[in-house]
Amino acid sequence: MSLASGRTYLAIPGPSVVPDAVLRAMHRASPNIYEGELIDMMPALTADLKKVARTDGHVAIYISNGHGTWEAALANTVAPGEKVLLLSTGFFAKAWGWVVEARGIEVDVLDFGNGGTFDLALVEDALRADATHEYKAVLAVHVDTSSSNRNAFAPLRQILDDLDHPALLMADCIASMGCDRFEMDAWGVDVAITGSQKGLMCPPGCGFVFFNDKAAEARSRLDRVSVYWDWTQRANPEAFYQYFSGTAPTHHLYGLRVALDMIHEEGLEAIWARHDTLARAIWTACEHWGQDGPLKLNIQDPNLRSRAVTSLSIGKPDGRRLRQWCADQGGVTLGIGLGMSTEEDPMSEGFFRFGHMGHVNAHMILGLLGVVEAGLAAIGVPHRPGGVAEAAKVVSGV
Amino acid sequence: MSLASGRTYLAIPGPSVVPDAVLRAMHRASPNIYEGELIDMMPALTADLKKVARTDGHVAIYISNGHGTWEAALANTVAPGEKVLLLSTGFFAKAWGWVVEARGIEVDVLDFGNGGTFDLALVEDALRADATHEYKAVLAVHVDTSSSNRNAFAPLRQILDDLDHPALLMADCIASMGCDRFEMDAWGVDVAITGSQKGLMCPPGCGFVFFNDKAAEARSRLDRVSVYWDWTQRANPEAFYQYFSGTAPTHHLYGLRVALDMIHEEGLEAIWARHDTLARAIWTACEHWGQDGPLKLNIQDPNLRSRAVTSLSIGKPDGRRLRQWCADQGGVTLGIGLGMSTEEDPMSEGFFRFGHMGHVNAHMILGLLGVVEAGLAAIGVPHRPGGVAEAAKVVSGV
Amino acid sequence: MSLASGRTYLAIPGPSVVPDAVLRAMHRASPNIYEGELIDMMPALTADLKKVARTDGHVAIYISNGHGTWEAALANTVAPGEKVLLLSTGFFAKAWGWVVEARGIEVDVLDFGNGGTFDLALVEDALRADATHEYKAVLAVHVDTSSSNRNAFAPLRQILDDLDHPALLMADCIASMGCDRFEMDAWGVDVAITGSQKGLMCPPGCGFVFFNDKAAEARSRLDRVSVYWDWTQRANPEAFYQYFSGTAPTHHLYGLRVALDMIHEEGLEAIWARHDTLARAIWTACEHWGQDGPLKLNIQDPNLRSRAVTSLSIGKPDGRRLRQWCADQGGVTLGIGLGMSTEEDPMSEGFFRFGHMGHVNAHMILGLLGVVEAGLAAIGVPHRPGGVAEAAKVVSGV
Amino acid sequence: MSLASGRTYLAIPGPSVVPDAVLRAMHRASPNIYEGELIDMMPALTADLKKVARTDGHVAIYISNGHGTWEAALANTVAPGEKVLLLSTGFFAKAWGWVVEARGIEVDVLDFGNGGTFDLALVEDALRADATHEYKAVLAVHVDTSSSNRNAFAPLRQILDDLDHPALLMADCIASMGCDRFEMDAWGVDVAITGSQKGLMCPPGCGFVFFNDKAAEARSRLDRVSVYWDWTQRANPEAFYQYFSGTAPTHHLYGLRVALDMIHEEGLEAIWARHDTLARAIWTACEHWGQDGPLKLNIQDPNLRSRAVTSLSIGKPDGRRLRQWCADQGGVTLGIGLGMSTEEDPMSEGFFRFGHMGHVNAHMILGLLGVVEAGLAAIGVPHRPGGVAEAAKVVSGV
Repeated sequence: MSLASGRTYLAIPGPSVVPDAVLRAMHRASPNIYEGELIDMMPALTADLKKVARTDGHVAIYISNGHGTWEAALANTVAPGEKVLLLSTGFFAKAWGWVVEARGIEVDVLDFGNGGTFDLALVEDALRADATHEYKAVLAVHVDTSSSNRNAFAPLRQILDDLDHPALLMADCIASMGCDRFEMDAWGVDVAITGSQKGLMCPPGCGFVFFNDKAAEARSRLDRVSVYWDWTQRANPEAFYQYFSGTAPTHHLYGLRVALDMIHEEGLEAIWARHDTLARAIWTACEHWGQDGPLKLNIQDPNLRSRAVTSLSIGKPDGRRLRQWCADQGGVTLGIGLGMSTEEDPMSEGFFRFGHMGHVNAHMILGLLGVVEAGLAAIGVPHRPGGVAEAAKVVSGV
Repeated sequence: MSLASGRTYLAIPGPSVVPDAVLRAMHRASPNIYEGELIDMMPALTADLKKVARTDGHVAIYISNGHGTWEAALANTVAPGEKVLLLSTGFFAKAWGWVVEARGIEVDVLDFGNGGTFDLALVEDALRADATHEYKAVLAVHVDTSSSNRNAFAPLRQILDDLDHPALLMADCIASMGCDRFEMDAWGVDVAITGSQKGLMCPPGCGFVFFNDKAAEARSRLDRVSVYWDWTQRANPEAFYQYFSGTAPTHHLYGLRVALDMIHEEGLEAIWARHDTLARAIWTACEHWGQDGPLKLNIQDPNLRSRAVTSLSIGKPDGRRLRQWCADQGGVTLGIGLGMSTEEDPMSEGFFRFGHMGHVNAHMILGLLGVVEAGLAAIGVPHRPGGVAEAAKVVSGV
Repeated sequence: MSLASGRTYLAIPGPSVVPDAVLRAMHRASPNIYEGELIDMMPALTADLKKVARTDGHVAIYISNGHGTWEAALANTVAPGEKVLLLSTGFFAKAWGWVVEARGIEVDVLDFGNGGTFDLALVEDALRADATHEYKAVLAVHVDTSSSNRNAFAPLRQILDDLDHPALLMADCIASMGCDRFEMDAWGVDVAITGSQKGLMCPPGCGFVFFNDKAAEARSRLDRVSVYWDWTQRANPEAFYQYFSGTAPTHHLYGLRVALDMIHEEGLEAIWARHDTLARAIWTACEHWGQDGPLKLNIQDPNLRSRAVTSLSIGKPDGRRLRQWCADQGGVTLGIGLGMSTEEDPMSEGFFRFGHMGHVNAHMILGLLGVVEAGLAAIGVPHRPGGVAEAAKVVSGV
Repeated sequence: MSLASGRTYLAIPGPSVVPDAVLRAMHRASPNIYEGELIDMMPALTADLKKVARTDGHVAIYISNGHGTWEAALANTVAPGEKVLLLSTGFFAKAWGWVVEARGIEVDVLDFGNGGTFDLALVEDALRADATHEYKAVLAVHVDTSSSNRNAFAPLRQILDDLDHPALLMADCIASMGCDRFEMDAWGVDVAITGSQKGLMCPPGCGFVFFNDKAAEARSRLDRVSVYWDWTQRANPEAFYQYFSGTAPTHHLYGLRVALDMIHEEGLEAIWARHDTLARAIWTACEHWGQDGPLKLNIQDPNLRSRAVTSLSIGKPDGRRLRQWCADQGGVTLGIGLGMSTEEDPMSEGFFRFGHMGHVNAHMILGLLGVVEAGLAAIGVPHRPGGVAEAAKVVSGV
């Protein structure tokens, strides 16, 4: 007998749950790509995308995943042989660094570990030391999907401005956009990237690069940019195919249209508030359980926690065992630990993650926590019972 | 801000949650209805349907809802002017009675209220008093969707056999089949009915009447049966259209095929065990909450409770308020109270129901209970907190 | 090698091709059936249904197929032991007659064969002979799906009025509604029936009975009507479930909503004109082929031909062979001959039918005719080549 | 009134018609991307992809469109500053050339116009002249989607071998793979590229680069390749995410799985034969019409014509008018002319194309031709009537 038979919940940090309405919109005949409806949809689509990033700048849509947007952001702004500063608070920042290096760009990494955020003094030191402005860009991840920390960008902008440093400020918002508050223009971010498969609630397959006029100037400084990554025509196309440098991602565009309608109907502020409350419910449950056992949130300071993903440790091999139980008996798939491996736990068996991004509500999250509480008991991990009830209190708003 | 935005859960006692695989199978071009695949599918489909009812008898498929199967069961067995005995433990038994009467059939009702089950002594008295065997059938509901009680049929068979009473034993299994254990042949049920939209996990639109040879003989005794309800050809067709007395419910058949595959792959015993555990989780939570407040399960004796639907009272107007909160803030739609109205509560505002039939797993049920616990707190209904955590314990199996 | 691999066309006379938008609307979670959207949709849905029948009367929606509506129409108007007059021009009229008889209603049949229409003089004679008004209804099929003839109803109304005969005039519009012009009120039809799966472009599973006040009065005359067929509450429900005598056909309603939107956006007159042109294209091709071979339209007079279905003969066994070739090599499924069997051709192997109802356009019909022309050549049936090109001329409007 | 209302046919040269089964497979919940079914699917998926290209080499899957695969093929084989030889027979070869240049690669173009194929003597001259083997690759398009010509690759291999020239032979098979015969290994092609949205019958969104060991060696010669385009890990991944350099195109993979099943069930030889017959039907109709009017196939020699796309001219503005009529009245969307503009016809209003790739059968193609014949008559373009009937003859095989 399994208690998992039913509608399962994929609680990994992306791809997220795709709304039925989005899937329905994608279940359709291929459209004409030279005339008609799809072409006419584009201006409103890009406008609505930019609203999600809170920018009046530009957006380029790529058929790619998030890694593709890492390439695109660099391809348009930094030439091989030039240099960038990378601020790391998790695995994905480091992985972005590898992409930078493979493009022949020099990268200095300030590594702040997996458990916190930037030490602004160190950032300032590094930028101040760069008197000749070798750094063409400062790269940082808004929410690192591995460590689940959330970094502030306004202070980085402040430092750059104070030092009059011309480096572009680039934000990887792949895990956060549409979940954690992000204000591209207000925070002074020059380039922001994301993908279709998390807060935007679509299947993987599209990436988005938002950029402002300052970043556009950086592009024009470059000798050459490969056609596929060049954002110039994508952001200001004269013909429809230029949005995508070739054939459009037709079905994704229909799905994205519906997802954006859902987002703007609910309202970004309401969405951020929903994610905030549900994240607090999760933290409350986890802290409750952890009072009498090994379960620990990876990020201790609530201000530094993502509202879209939560990284946890429980000790080897119970992370793996808990994930297994939740899938086999609960109908919930948890995310594996990523980038947290230690000498004693090379396979990250003591870590796991909750994805709670995009199309998630109280029922889904309380069900997730209920299953985890059942799982802790079932596999015999010490914990203080009642975490899910504490989470329900948070949800109740009382 | 609403915490309901996400994948919602319709927790009403039918229609139940349709699995994605079933919906996917129904999203298809119309098939040929004269030759080919659909025609070839039928023998295995009817065989697999009968396995769900645990019968080696016959099955007739109707394009209808459950009310239609009430008609069909009677149309083939009892003539206008004849008489049946109806055992009522809830609203739907009574509603079946109205259908009986409108067919010109006389009906004697033994009403056992909404909170329990049959008084077998009274049943025996009634049948013993019918020395001339006026009663052509004894009608009873297995699980009454309104009161959520569950009745035993083997004792009814025992009484009929002991008295040598030839009345057919008919069971309405609309709410229960595929959720609560039901053994048509072993329990001596002659006619059993159900619909597509509950334990069978399909959209509404098909009804099923199972009958044994004794019931088939009753049919042959009748002068005439209207073509649409006549089960003779439907159960033993020479041509495909005779299964359905006309055009087949093509898309439902494809959905049903997938649903039956899911059912038999999981196994009926495993499905019944899953429903049993999840129902016990629900009862545990409700009884916990009720220790410090007005919430009450309608059926006190666990042996008499359905594993597919749970009827509750909480006092007017809090049933209505709780349903509203769960829908608006939790993403869960609860069922309204039905057939439980009182003088003080003519609109049944103090009642509500959980549907937990078919495609339900631990995540869905614990999420439901988490939302209800949050809702009780939010709208200020006194309750002992922690019910959802108690339910998680049941799910853990520890 | 097969030339059939691709998107196939089911050209049988029902179920018809379901538009993608209808299937998409049906691919959804089950809705609440006690409150909300679905309930709110009903008034406009029934209003839009009535517009399709061109009536200001009433409509009852049944979960059933067309045969079910045959029962419903009778159940509400004619009691067992009473009498009706049935005018037959094909197999389905006769089949309706069997349904009448099985209800214990006496039926006099005027059989006008399979190749034409009513002899109005004979109809008038029969009604005039019924001086005591034994006939409670005159039953006739608008388009008989087997013979593909189309009958006029206004002359029948004229006869009834001239004779002051109170019999209800009932029209089976299952094959025709939404394809062939039908004007219920203007033509004086009292009861009209149809199904979801032909001109209404939905999967099979719903039937519709339209009736006017005179027919409603006939209902009130009856002692009893079985609950499922009783149209009283269905047409004037106080609660949502009464529309359907129980659980609603939830998914069909969503599909039907989209289908009605499509119908009224295109406009009934435009739809009828489209079917008329496409039907004329079909006839032109067939008459062209038949000039040098055995292929023959069943109905000779164009005024008596349906615009939704076309019945043909070609001689045994070439009907069967042609259907086989079109399916295996062309990607088109033709309808079998029905009700046309003769002593020499007991299995109707010399007959076949084209369904061209509902969601059909020039591409589909010219493709159908192109495949048939290829098939005639491939299996060696003598014919004058070029029929499909003649049909293209009709489509061109030149 | 419009005769277009019905199931429309998008007859543009990509995206092609997506089979219902593919769309159905893509309509599903997001899967886990760390464990389970999707991960397990990959070995068979890549094996089946390689069978379509007729290669025992390697395949790298990209989230991209066809333009992306142009980049990928170059990124792994030719460094900036190096040189390639490009053989052009249409617009898309030229466009590939622009991509080459933007990568800082020098490109020599041999332009053979839009109406034929390579002049092998000129190719041989160019390669012979390159005694120092500056050309790292010879780039050519198998079927140019604009001109619809089809080029042979075996002769190019012969020339390279005869001259002992080490340049890689690269084939753009975007428009042709799975439609026109293509034998990568047998023909000595080193790198072949295609996309998901034409012969592979999926929505746009994935690109595929096939390469052999010789090409793999070219990759290892390069100092650096950007991570996204690097095919090394994609073709030989140690972890699932390496197939895609990040998040997988989850839904496309499910669709592709079904498409490959359909392809290998039908068989590549059968598919090529089907496309061949249907293409000949199209040519026959067009040549027939053209006997008495301006309609002309762009490619005169049948051996040089694609079986997947057909480019036509008819004179300005009748190409545009015909497309409009077919869409508005016929339910068929034709492709616009591309890359064929002249001084008199700068907007290519006198050109149009038929896409007949992938999921196409006799019904679809004969319907297309029927509509075009009707359109020619309707808009008054002189033509010899009967082309569609001639095409039916081709389809009949007689």
